[in-house]
Order: sequence, then C-alpha cells, then structure tokens
Amino acid sequence: MERVFFEEWEGFKPGKWSNTAVIPRDFIQKNYTLYEGDESFLEGPTEATRKLWEQVCELSRQEREAGGVLDMDTKIISTITSHGAGYIDKDLEQIVGLQTDKPLKRSLQPFGGLRMAQAACEQYGYKVDDDVVEIFTKYRKTHNQGVFDAYTPEMRLARHAAILTGLPDAYGRGRIIGDYRRVALYGVDYLIEDKKYQLANSLVRMTSENIRLREELAEQIRALGELKQLGAIYGYDISRPAKNAKEAIQWLYFGYLAAVKEQNGAAMSLGRTSTFIDIYIKRDMDRGILTEAEAQELIDHFIMKLRLVKFARTPEYNALFSGDPTWVTESIGGVSIDGVPMVTKTSFRYLNTLNNLGPAPEPNMTVLWSTKLPHNFKKFCAKMSIKSSAIQYENDDLMRVTHGDDYAIACCVSSMVVGKEMQFFGARANLAKCLLYAINGGVDERLGLQVGPKYRPVDGEYLDFDDVMSKYDDMMEWLAGLYVNTLNVIHYMHDKYSYERLQMALHDRDVKRYFATGIAGLSVVADSLSAIKYAKVKPVRKDIQIRNKKGEVVDVARNVVVDYIVEGDFPKYGNNDDRVDKIAVDIVKRFMNKIRKHHTYRGGIPTMSILTITSNVVYGKKTGSTPDGRKIGVPLAPGANPMHGRDTHGAAASLSSVAKLPFRHAQDGISNTFTVIPGALGKDDEVFAGDIDIESIARELEDGV
Amino acid sequence: MERVFFEEWEGFKPGKWSNTAVIPRDFIQKNYTLYEGDESFLEGPTEATRKLWEQVCELSRQEREAGGVLDMDTKIISTITSHGAGYIDKDLEQIVGLQTDKPLKRSLQPFGGLRMAQAACEQYGYKVDDDVVEIFTKYRKTHNQGVFDAYTPEMRLARHAAILTGLPDAYGRGRIIGDYRRVALYGVDYLIEDKKYQLANSLVRMTSENIRLREELAEQIRALGELKQLGAIYGYDISRPAKNAKEAIQWLYFGYLAAVKEQNGAAMSLGRTSTFIDIYIKRDMDRGILTEAEAQELIDHFIMKLRLVKFARTPEYNALFSGDPTWVTESIGGVSIDGVPMVTKTSFRYLNTLNNLGPAPEPNMTVLWSTKLPHNFKKFCAKMSIKSSAIQYENDDLMRVTHGDDYAIACCVSSMVVGKEMQFFGARANLAKCLLYAINGGVDERLGLQVGPKYRPVDGEYLDFDDVMSKYDDMMEWLAGLYVNTLNVIHYMHDKYSYERLQMALHDRDVKRYFATGIAGLSVVADSLSAIKYAKVKPVRKDIQIRNKKGEVVDVARNVVVDYIVEGDFPKYGNNDDRVDKIAVDIVKRFMNKIRKHHTYRGGIPTMSILTITSNVVYGKKTGSTPDGRKIGVPLAPGANPMHGRDTHGAAASLSSVAKLPFRHAQDGISNTFTVIPGALGKDDEVFAGDIDIESIARELEDGV
Repeated sequence: MERVFFEEWEGFKPGKWSNTAVIPRDFIQKNYTLYEGDESFLEGPTEATRKLWEQVCELSRQEREAGGVLDMDTKIISTITSHGAGYIDKDLEQIVGLQTDKPLKRSLQPFGGLRMAQAACEQYGYKVDDDVVEIFTKYRKTHNQGVFDAYTPEMRLARHAAILTGLPDAYGRGRIIGDYRRVALYGVDYLIEDKKYQLANSLVRMTSENIRLREELAEQIRALGELKQLGAIYGYDISRPAKNAKEAIQWLYFGYLAAVKEQNGAAMSLGRTSTFIDIYIKRDMDRGILTEAEAQELIDHFIMKLRLVKFARTPEYNALFSGDPTWVTESIGGVSIDGVPMVTKTSFRYLNTLNNLGPAPEPNMTVLWSTKLPHNFKKFCAKMSIKSSAIQYENDDLMRVTHGDDYAIACCVSSMVVGKEMQFFGARANLAKCLLYAINGGVDERLGLQVGPKYRPVDGEYLDFDDVMSKYDDMMEWLAGLYVNTLNVIHYMHDKYSYERLQMALHDRDVKRYFATGIAGLSVVADSLSAIKYAKVKPVRKDIQIRNKKGEVVDVARNVVVDYIVEGDFPKYGNNDDRVDKIAVDIVKRFMNKIRKHHTYRGGIPTMSILTITSNVVYGKKTGSTPDGRKIGVPLAPGANPMHGRDTHGAAASLSSVAKLPFRHAQDGISNTFTVIPGALGKDDEVFAGDIDIESIARELEDGV
Repeated sequence: MERVFFEEWEGFKPGKWSNTAVIPRDFIQKNYTLYEGDESFLEGPTEATRKLWEQVCELSRQEREAGGVLDMDTKIISTITSHGAGYIDKDLEQIVGLQTDKPLKRSLQPFGGLRMAQAACEQYGYKVDDDVVEIFTKYRKTHNQGVFDAYTPEMRLARHAAILTGLPDAYGRGRIIGDYRRVALYGVDYLIEDKKYQLANSLVRMTSENIRLREELAEQIRALGELKQLGAIYGYDISRPAKNAKEAIQWLYFGYLAAVKEQNGAAMSLGRTSTFIDIYIKRDMDRGILTEAEAQELIDHFIMKLRLVKFARTPEYNALFSGDPTWVTESIGGVSIDGVPMVTKTSFRYLNTLNNLGPAPEPNMTVLWSTKLPHNFKKFCAKMSIKSSAIQYENDDLMRVTHGDDYAIACCVSSMVVGKEMQFFGARANLAKCLLYAINGGVDERLGLQVGPKYRPVDGEYLDFDDVMSKYDDMMEWLAGLYVNTLNVIHYMHDKYSYERLQMALHDRDVKRYFATGIAGLSVVADSLSAIKYAKVKPVRKDIQIRNKKGEVVDVARNVVVDYIVEGDFPKYGNNDDRVDKIAVDIVKRFMNKIRKHHTYRGGIPTMSILTITSNVVYGKKTGSTPDGRKIGVPLAPGANPMHGRDTHGAAASLSSVAKLPFRHAQDGISNTFTVIPGALGKDDEVFAGDIDIESIARELEDGV
C-alpha cells in the first residue's frame, strides 16, 4: 500500500507505524513520554463536567427508581448506524455519542439471541415489536438458535445442571477488544484501504476456512464504512486521522461506540488507551492549544460516556453478577519490553476521574502492575484504591513475558495483545460439581438426574483418596471433552450469526485466537481431596429418584451420596501448606491437559482461567454438599481464592497458596479477590496511610496474582 | 427407531422399506407391476381436466400478452407456509397447491439473491417492497451477497468475460432432487422422527463439518414441520402416510411444492415418481375404488400443476435458455438391477398427458432408455416423440452401472440416486475461449482485457500444433483451478445463506455430493486443433487496447490474434474420424483431470458435463473467431454436438463421434441435440411410422448417448 505521512501526524516521530503498516504499538513506543512525577498537576472537574455528571447521576437515580431500566428500544434494531445523534446535554459535551438516541435507553440487540432480547424487555415491562420478532424468526437466524440447533442432549443437560455454566450462548460472547486507537491514529479511510489490501492478498485456494476469512474481511470493510457514517451522524469526518487530543478521544470512542452498538457482549473492554491518548494531549499542550483543565475535561467526558454503556439484560443476569456489569476494562500502566514504564500523565488523568466523577465500577480501571512502575504512580494508585476501592491490579511482569507491552485485559483477567489476539470466551466448568459426579457415578444428586456418564460410583463407609481421585480423573476427562465440544458449537455459531465485524476490523487479518475455558470451585475441590486424604470423610447416602428431562421419575439411584461427615482436621488451601496446595496445582494442570486433548474451533489455542468474581455465589447455590464440609448451596470461593475463613495463617500465606498455581496452565488468568484490611499487614489505619505501608501493599500485590 | 406397519400400507408387500429405514426403492422393487402391454388402455381427458386446462391455457395466453408475467409477489417472501391456499378452480381440481395464492403469480424469493429478485420484478414493471429490501439488506444476507464478498477479482473478471459462465451465484443453484415419494410413503411425522433419530446419532466431535451437519438436520426437521403446515393450509393432514393414489400424488406434490416455494433453483426436478405412483393406483384399482379415467385424471391434474411452476426471472435469463424453463424433470422407465424393466401403466399415463393436455416442455419427461424396455413401451415412446417432440431420452444401460435403479435426472443430463446423492451445480467453462486465451497469452481479444495469466502468446506466421497444445494445456490448468475455486465459494455460500432445508430433509443423512463442472465449445476446440494439425491456420493479428476494470486504457497488446485464415481441409468432429475425435476425447479427459487436482467443497466428487442445449448461442456470442474458421459471435454447437453442418457423413457417423466421449470423464452427462429426419435413416416418412423403423431409432438411441 502507498503510504503518506498524514498532516495530522505532524510532530509525531515516524516509524514503522507511519511507513509500513497499522502498528499503534510502534507509534506509542516512539512517541510516549514517561511521567515519573506525582499527582499534583491534576485538575478537578470543570463546570461543564460537574453539570453533565449531575445530569447523569439524576438519570441513574431515575433508572434505579424505575426498577433498573429507564427506557428500552423495542423497534429499532441496534446497528452501527441505527440511531440519529443522541446527547446528555449537547452544549456541554466535549465527547459525544450514545448507544441509542437517549442516555440510558437500552438498545435492542437480537443478533445474539432473540429470546434473551425479548426476556430482557418483558421483565421490565416492554415488548419487542412484532415485526422485529418476525424478522428474527422467519428470515434472520440468531446465534442462540444456531447453538441450540447443534447442541447434543448431553450438552443441554450439562448446561441445565450447571456443571457447564455461564456459557455465551444466549447473547454476545464478548471478550474481544477492538483496537479502537487505530481509528484515531489512521482514520477510517486508511483502515479500509488496509483491509482491502489484506483481502486482495488473501489466500485464493478456496477451502471453507479461506472463504470464511475472505467473507469476514468483506464484512469488516462494510462495518468500517458504517463507522464513518456513525461519525457523520454526529457531525465528524472520521475518514481522516485525528488531528488533536479531542479528536483522538472522539475517534477512538466512535470505534468503541460502534462496537457496543453492534455487539452485546458480556465484556466489552476498551483496551489500553491512556498512554496512546497522552501523546495527543502532550502534543496539544506543547502547541499551547490545550490546558490541563481542558485535558482532564476531555478524559472526564470520555469516561462518563463509558460509564453510560449499558445492555438490555435479564434480572437473572444481574443477579449472577451482582449488578449490571459491562466490563469496559481499560488497562493502565505496565512496562515496555525495553524496561521503561509506560506511565504517562494521562495514566494519572484516567484514575483522576475517580476523584472528579466519584468512584464507579465502570470503566474497569486496571493497573498493569510491575515492580518497575514509578514510585509516585504506585503511591497514587494505592491512594486512589484506598479512596475508591475501584482499581483492579494485574501482574504485568508475568503477562509481559507472553504478551509483550501492547496487551490489554478483557473482562477481569483475560490478557490479549490489542488488535493481534482475540478470545473465544468459554465461561466455566464447575469442578466441584464434577467431583460430586465422580463420587456418584454421574448422578446429579441435587437434581435427581443422570448427567455424567454412568461410571461406577464410589462405595464403602469412608472415601478413599486413590479411589476418588481415579474416578475424578475419569469424570474430568468426560467433562473436558464435553466442555470443549460445547464451546466449539458456540463459537462456530457466533461467527456464523453474530460475527464481530467492527471489532475484528480493528484487528490484523491473521489473529491469534485463544480458546478460553475456565474452572470454578478450585478451593472446594482442593480442600475436599485434602479432607479425603488427610482426615476421614464419611459419605451420607440416600436413595434418590432419577428423572428424565420431562421430569418423570424413570429410576431410583440407590445409596447416592448427598452429604459428607468429616472426621478430624485436614490441611486447607490458602495456608501455604504444600500438602493441599499441590492438590490444587495438580487439578489445574490435570484439567487443562484434558482440555488440550480436544479439537478446538478455528485452531483456537486452549487456555484456562480460574475466575469467578461474583458468579461463584450462584454456582455455589447449584452445587451440593462437598467432602470438605461445605454444605449444599453455600457459595464457592471466588476465582482461585481459598474458601472463606479457611486461610487462617495470614495474608501472606493465603497469597502464597494462590501464587503457586501455574500460570502456564491457567493462562487466561487467575483471580484472587483479596480485601486488605490494615490489620492483615500488622499495621493500624494511620500508619497505613503513610508512605512505607503503601509500598508494602504494592509488594504484596507484586508477590500475588 | 420403533417401526409400525401403518394401516395405510395395507396390501403392500413389506420389506426393508417397512421394517428398518426410509427406503422407497425397496418399496418400489417389492411392489411394482411391470406392464408390457400397449397403450390401448389409456383414457382421454375428463371434463374436469378439459375445463381446468382451458383455464390454464387462458391464463397462459394472458401471461404472454402481459409480456411474459401475469402477476408477481412483491411483499410476501416465499417460504413453505407463506401463502394461504390458492386454486385454479377449486371444485374441479383433484390435486391442489400453488406456489402463491393465484396461478401464474410469481413468488418472491430473495434468499438466493435480492438483486436478481429486484431485477426480475422491475423488468416486468413491479417493485419489491421496501420492507423486504431492508430486511434483506440490513438483517438477512443472501447467497449472492456472500458469494461476491468472497470472490477474487480474477473470479469476477472471468465471470465478466464469460470464460466461466452461467454460474449459480445470483439465485438458487438447483439440481437437487428431493425424494418427494417419501412424503407419500411414510407421512411427515415419521420422516421427522427419522431425522431426529439421525440427529441423535450424529457425530458429537464438534468439528465445523459436524456442527454444520447437526444444524442442517435441525433445519431439515423445522422444514418438515412447515411441510405439514402446508398440507394443513390445503386441508390435508400429511403427517401420516398416504392411503390411496390420490393422496399419494397429493402428498408427493406437497413435498415438491414446498421445495419450489423455498428454492428458486435453475432446475427443480421431480425425480422418478411414475412407477412409485403406479403401485398406489394399482392397489386402488384392485380394491375397485379407482377407474382408469379417474387415475388418468389424477395424473393429468398433477402434471398440470407441474406445468404451472414458474419463477421470477429476468428477460436475460429467458434469452439464455430460449424460454422460461424450470426443468421439472421426471425420469420414466429404466430397468431394475435385476434386469426387469420398470415400466408400468403409469409410465404410459405420464406420457399420455402429452395427449390429454397437449405437448409442453415441462415437466421434462425423460425416458430412461434401455434395450431391455418392453417393445410396446418403446413403440409408444417413439409415437409420442413423433407427435409431441417433447420426450427426452437418456441411456439407462450406461447410467445403471453407476447409479443402480433408483436414480433420476436433474435438469437435462445430471444423474443422481434419488434421496442419496445430490449435486453442487457448476455451469460451465468455455473451452473455446480458453483456446483463444492460450493463443493470446490470457488476453481477451474481444473485450480488450487481460483475463487469464500473462503467459507467452503464440507467435509465428502459422499456428504450430505442439506449441498451441502446450500453451492450451497451461491455460486449461489455470482455468480448471479458477473454476473449481469459484464453485467452492458458490457452494459454501449457498449452504450458508440458502440451504435447501426441505429438499435435503427428503434425503438420507449422509449424501454423496457430486461437484459438477461443465464445458462448452468442445467441437469448436476439437475442430480448431484439427485445423491447426491437419490444415494450415494463419492467425490475423492486430494491436488492441487493454483496459482495466474501470474501462480505462492501460496498455496496448501488440499482435493479438483476432481472426484465423484456414488454408486447406481438415478432419472435423462428427464424422467418425479418429484423427479429430481423439482430440475431442483427449480434451475431455485432460480438462477433467485438471479439475480433479483441486480441493472441492465438502468433499464433493468432481464430475463434468458436456451440456449446453440453448445457452451455446449466448456463449458463442461472447466468443471470438476460432481457428476452425468459425467467425466471432457465431453460436457454439450445443453440448457434445458436432458443429452445425460439419457432420457430413450421416447420422451414424455423427453419433459415433459423440459416442466416443468417455462417460468416465464426463459423468455428469453428455448431451447431443439430434434431430432425426426420416431421410437420415434412409427411409421415407411412411415406412418410418412402421414397426421396424421405430426399432432402428431405438437402436440408434442405444448406441448413442
């Protein structure tokens, strides 16, 4: 392709990014300015910001009063260009663009699943228009319908019994991050040219794989055309690169907005934008056309827009996640592969929105933590964490090894190189439930259903470790195969019926695809196996009725284990005790290796996460009593956490147990929900606010996840 | 699956068809009654038939007067259940069901391609409803759009230059025959159960291929449900098997009607139904509940309905095919693999519709000719051929070797086992044009375009056979690859956007797929190469301007051959002269082998046809002057025919040349348009009507195609 140095790039250091290809990373590395100072330069909210935010707060209040939803589209099907311009208060807004024509009006997104869209509407007293229902019943198939056409009865049953759970088969799969920075840096016309070039140079041997890729590229080009139209709807010509900070943020946001207008994904993350944006802000300031207050205002207004992103979801969804999350995750900080921290003033400005607008869970501000981060930034992070409890930290030193310095986090923990890697999201398998199936020969004792294979159940008065472990291994083997095959169906159908045209248009042609799986209940499994090994576990048996899918009793299963009596004590995960920690490590490695045995859709690279942040409560509800003494219905521990209250040897020991889990076998991320109270560090509140103690929190964080 | 002997089957001999699986062939073989008598039992039209047919004729007259189309749907998208009941004259009709709510009202079928549907409407003064356009633009992609998204520029160019031509990328691909007999024999409920059983026992390793199959089975089940609804719309419960001849014909027709309501295929053939229907008619007659006149009335009304099948097509389409064809091909006769002719009284009754309703090109009555057919039937066929010129003959003795005794012809010559085999239709490559490209180094001298690869052109004052042949081989190599890859795109997209749910529901689960290619211009190529070899061919050269796709002159090609001067005589294909016939055989084999080198979609088995019945005229228009002395724009010979007037050694010699073509390398069929005038057989008109002479025509037919 022919390259010109756009006039909008004046003042930027050229490089591969401007000479050869679409490489925002190269632009960032050549142009960003490390900031090692403190937060004293930051500005508070402007008058406009304050007024706008008041209006948003008022709308949010009205939304809560209206039962969680303020307004819903029932007729207009959300596409990139489906709506006219919408504003909170046009005269005050520096950064514009809403999902629909009004703030907090939820858009109608049936491509992932009509039933979900209908249920979401109906539960808030709305009704999807008949014409829309007809189109998506007679003429346009949805992802959800495709999935259920291909599911086996076994898959449906495993889903019903919630041994496979949270599967992205009812709406968008999410967890794909468009490289929205490309819109600002190159302008849409150049991106279209680039995609045309890719298509022109794509494989011409027409296998199904190559045909699919060619069609996808054509769809990406179409989506980019619509993205330009979206800009035009708001009066902007985004065909060319952004020429200043305001445009850069606006262009970038249009990219993101187009993505959320087109896709209703569980996690619609933003990427890694702050240091990118900083380059534009610094250039404007150097040119004397932007003040700090103005810069902060741009960031505040941008973040405000991200806080307004909402999807039409069902109350069950909100219950599962204890809220109405969208995981607009923004990754901040980190260190370059040359060892230079990537902290800029705008890293501070992003976090400063927690001051200016107050704390909020969205966007999900995630600091890519490294020992090498500047001291002042670490201090500021800790301070803001204490103040807002709204910052997530992840281990950059660990992830940089695999992903380099231009990755970002999707959702909570999934790392991927922006624009070069994507993920097939896979929710999770409940390994605690799987252990119960191993003991009961595939019978779900809670539901009275034969869900797993009819293997021999465990017998005898006490559970025997080797016997249980052998049976558990078999049951995990079954579950891993079923799980991967279920996800294959889901991702095949998502590509077919709800392809992320715009997000993938902001990726390279040949992306690396992670095939993400996940597990729930790790600590319960570790503790249960530890109890069986080191204490004595006596199963409590009962005859239970086995029902078929219609609910009719078809059989009676004799002596099914429904509870466990633990006699004696046993080592518990979360105390830095290798006897049980090794069990946890073994389970992670073992299940991941079983996952690796199976064919994955589109050559996806299998990964696994140990991640449940709130959904563990619902998963626990659906899991019977376990051999560790946990009773039926009690929440599982979140993510890789030790079970509540069992980590009795202090914070360091608890974190050490978690830190043993092998990242290599859980590369999609390990989450540990950890509340640091000053006492845990042996310091009281006042001392804690001081300098040294913030450092020790930082160290804890470095050692941990 | 549990099997019951349905009460509707009383009087039928049971077998595998009633005990184990859906096998209409087994039912036919166990139950049909060979008829060796003559036509004297046949009845003329009933009063109802006469009246109905008059009405149809009147409607056809009105249609012609209206410029070719009487009425068109512009709002209702044709699906199996889209319309209420429609009649010609309800009280008179024995067999009911129309594509829309009125006879000869053309249905709106945008799934294959919206542009084609719009063009067809607009050219007859209609306009597709805006809502429909919106749905098929914003929400529902079509086959046509998918294809053009994935085509390479080279494919578009080859299509534009008509070296690849007639590609099924604008509407339905057709050439798939549903086994409509299954509807009558088993009833829809049983077929649904069977499909559910197939789905339950389908592969569970979720590769893309298996997922696709599972989804297709789910779609087939859905389509069968709609088929039942179609019956209900006309007041029939087709969930159960047909209980008499009238129901059998009606059920079978509902199956076919559902197919044409859902698919607008170039050839929507019927299969091989007459001997199947005969079993029902005979049983009714044996029971004394049906007279010959009533039986003929049922057949007449059925055939009348088939004659009414129409699609909305553009005038260009009609020009290409010299009419408005639908290729409702019905295969009659043939011999069982036990050597027993499969001629029944209903074979006669089908042909008798040519008496009762008069001759018509549709349905395309095709006699599967064998030396073993009963003498009386042969005589009747010949008589009806002379009277109507409306019977097609194909060589059963040849095709039975490959396909057994339950195959049928789709379109003109494509043979496939009913319900067990299907075809990916592939139209054709113009080999005459390919020869010109070989001579001119890929330049299309007619269009001034570089279409083929820029190989070295032929130079010198006279063409050298070895030189031309070597270059032609290279050019065919290129063309075969491009052709197969283009078809891969087409069939991938057709499956994706316009899958034949209902037709495939009337197939077994695991069908054999033929990947059909075709060639045009064989005799021109053979004669051209013969002229180069045995006479002297002097190329006429000219400098021509080369244009890009925008029509701008980008280059001048020097010394491009635009015409040929042939000095001396040369052997011509069609005279049983091996010198040239072997060239024809070599080309067929050579091109087919090149086709075989390429990956085909879905493991399709590559085949080739030598078939153009009318489209050869249009193909000739787009082909420049050729080295055989044929001038630019002159029609090619149809199919495998010798070039017009060049077969100067009599009918037998002409047929002998064609008969040398290897069926093994042209398994999709070889067509030879052959008009027998009595003189060709050395007999005058009167003698010709006699007994012996009919036998000799029959023998000619046997020796030939």
